[in-house]
Amino acid sequence: MRIVVLAGGIGGARFLRGLRSTLAEETNNPGSGIITVIGNTGDDITLFGLRICPDLDTVMYTLGGGINEEQGWGRAEETFTVREELAAYGMRPQWFGLGDRDVATHIVRAQMMAAGYPLSAVTEALCDRWRPGVRLLPMTDDRVETHVVVADGEGRRAIHFQEWWVRHRAAIPAEEIVSVGAADAKPAPGVLEAIEAADVVLLPPSNPVVSVGSILGVPGIRDAVAAKTVVGVSPIIGGAPVRGMADACLTAIGVATTAQAVAEHYGADLLDGWLVDDADAGTEVAGVAVRSRPLYMSDPEATAAIARAALDLAVELKEGRA
Amino acid sequence: MRIVVLAGGIGGARFLRGLRSTLAEETNNPGSGIITVIGNTGDDITLFGLRICPDLDTVMYTLGGGINEEQGWGRAEETFTVREELAAYGMRPQWFGLGDRDVATHIVRAQMMAAGYPLSAVTEALCDRWRPGVRLLPMTDDRVETHVVVADGEGRRAIHFQEWWVRHRAAIPAEEIVSVGAADAKPAPGVLEAIEAADVVLLPPSNPVVSVGSILGVPGIRDAVAAKTVVGVSPIIGGAPVRGMADACLTAIGVATTAQAVAEHYGADLLDGWLVDDADAGTEVAGVAVRSRPLYMSDPEATAAIARAALDLAVELKEGRA
Repeated sequence: MRIVVLAGGIGGARFLRGLRSTLAEETNNPGSGIITVIGNTGDDITLFGLRICPDLDTVMYTLGGGINEEQGWGRAEETFTVREELAAYGMRPQWFGLGDRDVATHIVRAQMMAAGYPLSAVTEALCDRWRPGVRLLPMTDDRVETHVVVADGEGRRAIHFQEWWVRHRAAIPAEEIVSVGAADAKPAPGVLEAIEAADVVLLPPSNPVVSVGSILGVPGIRDAVAAKTVVGVSPIIGGAPVRGMADACLTAIGVATTAQAVAEHYGADLLDGWLVDDADAGTEVAGVAVRSRPLYMSDPEATAAIARAALDLAVELKEGRA
Repeated sequence: MRIVVLAGGIGGARFLRGLRSTLAEETNNPGSGIITVIGNTGDDITLFGLRICPDLDTVMYTLGGGINEEQGWGRAEETFTVREELAAYGMRPQWFGLGDRDVATHIVRAQMMAAGYPLSAVTEALCDRWRPGVRLLPMTDDRVETHVVVADGEGRRAIHFQEWWVRHRAAIPAEEIVSVGAADAKPAPGVLEAIEAADVVLLPPSNPVVSVGSILGVPGIRDAVAAKTVVGVSPIIGGAPVRGMADACLTAIGVATTAQAVAEHYGADLLDGWLVDDADAGTEVAGVAVRSRPLYMSDPEATAAIARAALDLAVELKEGRA
C-alpha cells in the first residue's frame, strides 16, 4: 500500500504518527517507503540568516522523537539562549520562538542551501538524523511564501504569514491570503511521481487554506491528487477548528468554518471521502462519501484509530471505484 | 591623554581592563574616548555561516563584563546546545568551542556584514550593547586571515590559524605563518587617525606574531605606530610565554622565546620602551629603554599596576623625547 499524505504542521504530524503506528501494527513494518509526505513550505521564513521551515520540521521532529509534545512544535528540552542574546543586541523580530536546538537545524539548512542544495536534498539530509520512518518531501524546491493582506490602524499591507500567525495570533482580520511565487513553482523532485504511484492520498486535519491549500496551489499537484482516491479528515469539529486558528484563514477566503464548507472548498473533484466528527454527523457533501466518528486526536491510540478510519475509507472507495 | 593599544585576545583584553581601571582611578573617567583599541582580526573565521572574530569579542566581552573569567575567552554562563546539535547532524568542524551566547554575537555580525556593513561598523554596533569604555576598532575591514603552513604525516599544507591553535593546540610544528590578504588590506576607518592623534602607543603582552604582528602587518599601521612613543609589555617571562602557546609561533618565524628576542623582533625603530619581568631583569635591547617589574597579571590590581607602569614609562620616554 503506497500512501501519500499532504501535511501541514502539528495536525499533519500527529496524524502521520498515528498512520505510521496503525500501519506498523498491521505489517510489522515501521512504514518507511510506503508513506510519502508532501510537506507545506508556504510558512517558511528566513530570519537572522537562518532558513526556517516550520511544517517540515514539525513533521520531522514529531516522527523522529524530538518534538516538544505539549506544545506540538519545536524541540523537546529546548532552551532560548540565542534568542535572548539576539534580543539583548536589539535584533528584530523578537516575536519568533527560536529555540537553541532548533537554531542548529536552521544553520544546517541555511548552510546547505547557500552551498546550492535544493530544499528537497536538505530535507533528506536532515532526515538522515531523524529517521522519521516516512519519505518527507517539500511541496516545492522553489520559494513560495504565504503572505496575508491585513488592514488595521497601521494601514493596509501584506505581511508574512508567520508575522500574522505568531506575532498577531491571527487577530488582525485577513483580507486576502496570497501564495507568493506559487504560480511559477514546480513540484519538488519525486512529488508528482509519488502521487502517481500512490494507491490513496490522505489529507490530515491540517489547515485547509495555508497548509493543504498551499500544497495544492503548486501547479500540477492538485491535478495529480484529484486523479487518485482521496480521503480527508475534517479539521473543523462542530463549527470550530480542532486546534489553531484555521477559522481566521477560512474567513479570509470566504469559507464557513464548518466541516461541510471545508469539504466543499476542497471540492468533489478532489475529494472522494470525508471524515467528520460525530458532532457533525449528518453532514452531506455532494459527490463525496462522508463518514462520522470521533476526530479528537487526544492520544496516540485515538490518533491511530482516526488514521486507520481514513485509510479504510480510502481503500473501500478505491475498491468501489475499481 | 590619548592612548592607542594594539590588542590580541586574552592578554590584550586583561591588560586593557587594567589600563582602564588605572586611568579611572586617576581621572574619575572610565576611559571612554581616551583609549582606542586596534584589535587583531587575523584569527577571524567563518564557520557554519557565522562570522567569528575571537580577539575583538574577547576584548568586548572582557571590558563589557560578559567574559568567562576563568577561561579568559567566551561568555560567562555559556551553554553549548547549538554546538551539540550541529554535531548530531554530523556538521564539521566539531573542534571549535562555539557557545550559544556567542552564536548570537556571530549571527548579528554575519547578518550585518551580509547587509553590506563593514566590520568596523558592526563592531561599533556590537559595542553599543557591551559599552567597553574604550573605542574598539578592527585593524582592517578587509579580510586578512592567518594561515599556518604545517607538515606532518598528512603532508605539507596550509591550515587556518584557528585549526592549528584550537584543534591541534599548536602541537604540529609550524613551518611558516602567513597573513593572507594583508598586503592588500587597508587600515579600518579611524585606525591611522587614532594612531596619529595618540600621545602614546602600548603593546600589551599579546602574541607578538599572530596578534600584534598581524596588526602591524596591515600596510600603513607599522609606520604610523613607529612615529609614536611606543612601550611594549613582554609576553615572555623567563623563556616561556606567560600564557598560551606564543613560543610555537615565535619558533615558526625563527625568533627565540625570550623577552630580549621579542623586543628585537619588534625592533628599536618601533619600540621606545620594553617592560620585562623581574625574572628577566638585566635584559638589554639596543635603542630601547628596558625596565623590569612583576609582569604576571594575576589579579585586577596587579594588572592595573602593570598597565600603569607601561603608561608611566611611555610618558617618561615621550617627555624625554620632547
